Amino acid sequence: MIPTRIQMLRERMKACGIDAYIVPSSDPHQSEYVADHYASRAFITGFTGSSGTAVITQSEAGLWTDGRYFIQAENQLKNTGITLFRMGEKGVPTLFDYLNEQLPNGATIGFDGRVISLTYYKQLTQATKGKGFAFDGDYDLIGDIWDDRPEVPTTPVILHDVKYAGKTREEKIQDVRQRMAALGATHYLLCGLDDIAWLLNIRGQDIPYNPLTIAYVVITTDSVHLFIDGRKLTDPVREALEESHITLHPYDDIERYLETVKEGRVLLDPSKTNLKLYRRIAVEVIERNDITTELKAIKNETELKNLRHVMIRDGIAMVKFIRWLKETVKARPISEIEAAERLDSLRAEDPLFVNPSFATISAYGSNAAMPHYHATPQNHSMIQPKGFYLVDSGGQYYDCTTDITRTIAVGPLTPEEKHDFTLVLKGMIQLSRQKFIYGATGSTLDVLARSAMWNEGIDFKHGTGHGVGFFLNVHEGPHRISMAPNRVKLEPGMITSNEPGIYKEGRYGIRTENLLVVQQAEANEFGQFLEFETLTLCPIDLEALEIESLTIEERRWLNDYHQYVYDKLSPYLNGADLHFLQEATRAI
Amino acid sequence: MIPTRIQMLRERMKACGIDAYIVPSSDPHQSEYVADHYASRAFITGFTGSSGTAVITQSEAGLWTDGRYFIQAENQLKNTGITLFRMGEKGVPTLFDYLNEQLPNGATIGFDGRVISLTYYKQLTQATKGKGFAFDGDYDLIGDIWDDRPEVPTTPVILHDVKYAGKTREEKIQDVRQRMAALGATHYLLCGLDDIAWLLNIRGQDIPYNPLTIAYVVITTDSVHLFIDGRKLTDPVREALEESHITLHPYDDIERYLETVKEGRVLLDPSKTNLKLYRRIAVEVIERNDITTELKAIKNETELKNLRHVMIRDGIAMVKFIRWLKETVKARPISEIEAAERLDSLRAEDPLFVNPSFATISAYGSNAAMPHYHATPQNHSMIQPKGFYLVDSGGQYYDCTTDITRTIAVGPLTPEEKHDFTLVLKGMIQLSRQKFIYGATGSTLDVLARSAMWNEGIDFKHGTGHGVGFFLNVHEGPHRISMAPNRVKLEPGMITSNEPGIYKEGRYGIRTENLLVVQQAEANEFGQFLEFETLTLCPIDLEALEIESLTIEERRWLNDYHQYVYDKLSPYLNGADLHFLQEATRAI
Repeated sequence: MIPTRIQMLRERMKACGIDAYIVPSSDPHQSEYVADHYASRAFITGFTGSSGTAVITQSEAGLWTDGRYFIQAENQLKNTGITLFRMGEKGVPTLFDYLNEQLPNGATIGFDGRVISLTYYKQLTQATKGKGFAFDGDYDLIGDIWDDRPEVPTTPVILHDVKYAGKTREEKIQDVRQRMAALGATHYLLCGLDDIAWLLNIRGQDIPYNPLTIAYVVITTDSVHLFIDGRKLTDPVREALEESHITLHPYDDIERYLETVKEGRVLLDPSKTNLKLYRRIAVEVIERNDITTELKAIKNETELKNLRHVMIRDGIAMVKFIRWLKETVKARPISEIEAAERLDSLRAEDPLFVNPSFATISAYGSNAAMPHYHATPQNHSMIQPKGFYLVDSGGQYYDCTTDITRTIAVGPLTPEEKHDFTLVLKGMIQLSRQKFIYGATGSTLDVLARSAMWNEGIDFKHGTGHGVGFFLNVHEGPHRISMAPNRVKLEPGMITSNEPGIYKEGRYGIRTENLLVVQQAEANEFGQFLEFETLTLCPIDLEALEIESLTIEERRWLNDYHQYVYDKLSPYLNGADLHFLQEATRAI
Repeated sequence: MIPTRIQMLRERMKACGIDAYIVPSSDPHQSEYVADHYASRAFITGFTGSSGTAVITQSEAGLWTDGRYFIQAENQLKNTGITLFRMGEKGVPTLFDYLNEQLPNGATIGFDGRVISLTYYKQLTQATKGKGFAFDGDYDLIGDIWDDRPEVPTTPVILHDVKYAGKTREEKIQDVRQRMAALGATHYLLCGLDDIAWLLNIRGQDIPYNPLTIAYVVITTDSVHLFIDGRKLTDPVREALEESHITLHPYDDIERYLETVKEGRVLLDPSKTNLKLYRRIAVEVIERNDITTELKAIKNETELKNLRHVMIRDGIAMVKFIRWLKETVKARPISEIEAAERLDSLRAEDPLFVNPSFATISAYGSNAAMPHYHATPQNHSMIQPKGFYLVDSGGQYYDCTTDITRTIAVGPLTPEEKHDFTLVLKGMIQLSRQKFIYGATGSTLDVLARSAMWNEGIDFKHGTGHGVGFFLNVHEGPHRISMAPNRVKLEPGMITSNEPGIYKEGRYGIRTENLLVVQQAEANEFGQFLEFETLTLCPIDLEALEIESLTIEERRWLNDYHQYVYDKLSPYLNGADLHFLQEATRAI
């Protein structure tokens, strides 16, 4: 199937005079997850991971993806003729290097300009400067050959109550206008779907797992314009938006609207704005990270209060799930799919639960060595009473978004498994208990989660932590705890995950993940210090621990954490679940 | 004196129509240390630190400097009317913010274009974009008012033997040309004085402490041009250079030469190239970090062999010094200056010693709370048998450059002093013993040196480590262990200092510094790991240690290090020095 599609694409490329065609993962809004309509890269390669870029030439086809997806991509690319390029590994060319090496001077590189960001376009042209390439962003060649392409979704928009959001859309718009004025911007083009949802306190279901509606927004000094498919707006929603003086336009009118801007300065985020849209702007452009992304990253007091409540409800579901899993697996094997469904349904008991915040990763044994493994009815394992089971899951609730990973001993473990579990925990604890000076970024702190395992020659190929939205995307910027440079200073109110792991291909995978929020600590002659408050409430499996290799501080942290989990969750549990919680949070 | 100078400058500013005049620390080569001729910022402010930028307007004068110099700058700016801006502290505007806030739209900003780098100019114009400022780089207004300005130095050039350097200039030029070709450059303009000295295996004494000669180099595909004051070249040096087919030009001819380049592409490092020179170039420019900086950062086997030898000789001088200091201070107070001279003269006993690699920091008690304190005959303290004495020093040897800091208990210490000494040591050890994956940068690793003290609400306001030249600058890029983002991957053969500290203003300062070299460790399924080899050989004061707060691993590291120091140094010491070494390196 894939080779046939590639063959069809090559014919279209020839017809359009294109020597290499780039297919990224994204949609016109640079979303991380995309509606099926925009899954062009998955269509042409068969690789379904959330991140990866394909390049097709007449003689070759390649896919670039990162460490989270090496194993999955290798499997999915089998028999497609597509070469996997493992990004970041020594000796592996970057996509740009590849173009420079493989293509003759003056070759034409094509892509769909609607799904390429301005930032990516600049990087591409800069990195290939010496080769005199031509760039053609006018053709959606995948669309040309995709017969049964799904429609762009039109799910209804809902309003997000201020009792959850903490701020009205008028207040948020005012905050944004203040920042616009300081930057000298007259218009602000907002393309990020989660930025738009946050700003207007609206939600939708156009994107899988992310409660978003596909739209654009332009804020001017005295008006706000929402470009959206009108079919998605019920009367009450339409009225609420109009009451807030928001002018409604058809989605496709954004290009024409931008062309009407004849003076002033348009603020936009080049990493979120697609090339085609950018080219419609005739006035001066101020390029900058989205103001809204910075504002929404810092959770307000209402959001934090809601978050702490949800963590109790989410923790209860997790405890019930783990108790059930550990007991049931003694009696019979459990399929990874049954386990995931059980956990999803425990979460769904909550009246404010909407849907999972991403596809639950339910992975037994060697499957867990793929950090983003996804069990399918065709392809999954049975959980046996031996070794590790890993579950990474989360919920979209009206009153927040959660994300938690636990690795659970479902039976006897080898000393190596226990040792690695403990190394992962050491990393998670070192980061959790680190106080730090104001000015530190996620790049500053990342190594704390790796230090113990690096000293034993072990690493994990993904970031340590990501921001999390509030009933929004489970992955949210602008901060990120990662070896990759990130210049965003951590600020009080920012949420981050803390999720080191160890993955041994063909054997097992371990990851332990809590959500943390940055809090103010003391200020003194050295400056302002910050620290983390752990939000997630769920036991860490003591049966998987090599207790003797924990330091006194690590042991103290774990006991304190477990006491806290017990105090918060025990009022809501009883019977076998309460008994399990008592055991699981005992002091060691 | 300073207010008079500022008044004269303001009159010149008025005459030239300049509203704000920027005076940086640098010379036309963006050197860290500059010849007295270029000490314009010290002339106009009185602040003598190596890093800081002044801005003078008609109504105000300000100096921006970093945490290493806060205390020194505060003292030196007293009664000058100049405001100190502590860079990086919360609420302190950056220099660019200050210009935006203080100056009216359309104001004219002046500076000497010969001492402003292209990078700085771009940052300046970008950051002040919204204000419509005019920029005038044509006036050296400090030169105009500086009556007894020292001449540009003309010290003789010497050749650096390949038995020390490990590679001939022909080999180095060939390496550079290979990289030029890959970048498509026909000309390579080299402005960094240490880059030039390294490339041509020449040294000079034009710059204090740095063994450099003021010059420019242009490498083309088939020629090498050295622009240098001919008075600095003896006949043998001239002959050696000409034998290597290097064309000699007068120093000032560089501008005219660049104007003659009518085709091709000029490679240059925008952070090292001054604006005036850059504006002479009419053809396409490739901007990039200097190739030579990357090449010289990775020490070759000959350099490393030499380095390990010198560390023994440098360590012997240090051990003799510490023994003398600890004994003598029991009998009489010692001036900080006498101590520095003693150490310098012990180093000078080595036949291959040239001069100190920077002004020895010899600081007793509260003076050591200034990380870059410098004792002067007018202003210094007497070392008493109580508390801490800090000495940060190094040598320029023909066969390498050294840099070491030890903090020494010269008498009884308080528990707080011992505790802080131990926190510093914990940081130094955690970094020294960290194995890490290939791809890690100095920014990745920096926090390891701060983690223990941050958890107690303590920080130090300087980087943790810098590269070190080989009979070249004691501070050398491109890598740096620092919270500030640095994208340079650590590579085997790179040298770095490891020097955390704790500074308590008005009380004491502690810093412990070793030099490390990056070495290859194991490669496995997770990738290539790297580790540090410690080069510096000198005991760490056990009398200052709070032994019980060291972990088992830290204690083991310290005992292993001391055993290694003993094994390396003991064959060259005898009598009281040997006895002292035995005691100082005992297992704990």
